[in-house]
Amino acid sequence: MARAGRRPGPNETREQIAEAARRLFAAQGYDGATMRAIAAEAGVNPALLHHFYGTKRQLFVAAMNLPFNPADEIPQVLNGPPGEEGARLVRMILRLWAEPDTRAPFLALLRSAVTNEQAVTMMRQFLASAVLATVARARGISRLHASAAAAQMMGVALLRYVLEVPPMSTATEDEIVALVGPAIQYYLDGGQPPAASQR
Amino acid sequence: MARAGRRPGPNETREQIAEAARRLFAAQGYDGATMRAIAAEAGVNPALLHHFYGTKRQLFVAAMNLPFNPADEIPQVLNGPPGEEGARLVRMILRLWAEPDTRAPFLALLRSAVTNEQAVTMMRQFLASAVLATVARARGISRLHASAAAAQMMGVALLRYVLEVPPMSTATEDEIVALVGPAIQYYLDGGQPPAASQR
Repeated sequence: MARAGRRPGPNETREQIAEAARRLFAAQGYDGATMRAIAAEAGVNPALLHHFYGTKRQLFVAAMNLPFNPADEIPQVLNGPPGEEGARLVRMILRLWAEPDTRAPFLALLRSAVTNEQAVTMMRQFLASAVLATVARARGISRLHASAAAAQMMGVALLRYVLEVPPMSTATEDEIVALVGPAIQYYLDGGQPPAASQR
Repeated sequence: MARAGRRPGPNETREQIAEAARRLFAAQGYDGATMRAIAAEAGVNPALLHHFYGTKRQLFVAAMNLPFNPADEIPQVLNGPPGEEGARLVRMILRLWAEPDTRAPFLALLRSAVTNEQAVTMMRQFLASAVLATVARARGISRLHASAAAAQMMGVALLRYVLEVPPMSTATEDEIVALVGPAIQYYLDGGQPPAASQR
């Protein structure tokens, strides 16, 4: 839409930046799309990207319509009573997926990631750079431990909300937290082996 | 392809049945597509389905080009030295996904399941009826426990082979077995809580 003769307002500039970010993240991946290149694509001064969105991570979250910034919120959940971080993380993720408004963008991201090579690149790099590195640093664990916890939660979300396979889709939030929380806790604790399987 | 004037050979009949099964499983789901209806769709006697494919579960596995029948092979892995079933299951699944010939049909099933409502129904019912029920029965655990283990393994496969997110995609088989095996063992043991998170 050309808007000749009128200077775009802040909301339009914001949206122009988000559109440019979506295009470049899709074309070049999360790491490849620099803030400078996104600014050029949007035809704005790079300072405006920082003014409107702060960091690249926050711009990605906004551009993907993700309803929350995992890199900000996961560390918050990891603070609090020790030994129950796993349960809190499971509960947080179940609640995010349970809300239709939150589920829709996750689902869109997952659908495009399993069917589209550019979306895969974008999601891969965001997960690696933002989510896994953040969890690993916050807990002092390896990224492989963080990945295993992420894998568990992605699988639960896949069975419960995408494939809707019973009984994962019909169990209560409390049942899933009680069952899956200790497995997540095991990873967050750096892989202290469960009692039943010490080798 | 019409083959007027010639009686179809066994291989053609076999393939006719598989095609009919794919159509009906897709249209009506795993539970909805009866052996009788598949026989009618293929224009053959129902006895031929049993002759060529045995059970409905085996027909599904063959029709989907799944390279193995999870309902047959998972229980085998669950036999053997106790306390290491989790590690054996993780290793089996990693090896299935590592083989390009085995990965392709899994990937096709996963892609269609997250993007196509009929494929979802088919995969949902097969997982619930065949895989989860089989594991739960073999271990004397709830289907929710079996689902949590399945979720863990689907998430690992998603990160390692579909999204290819490092370090899950770059870790060795042994590293993943050592890390994820105890979490699977925890579920297979009916949820004996890991030592580090007993509440």
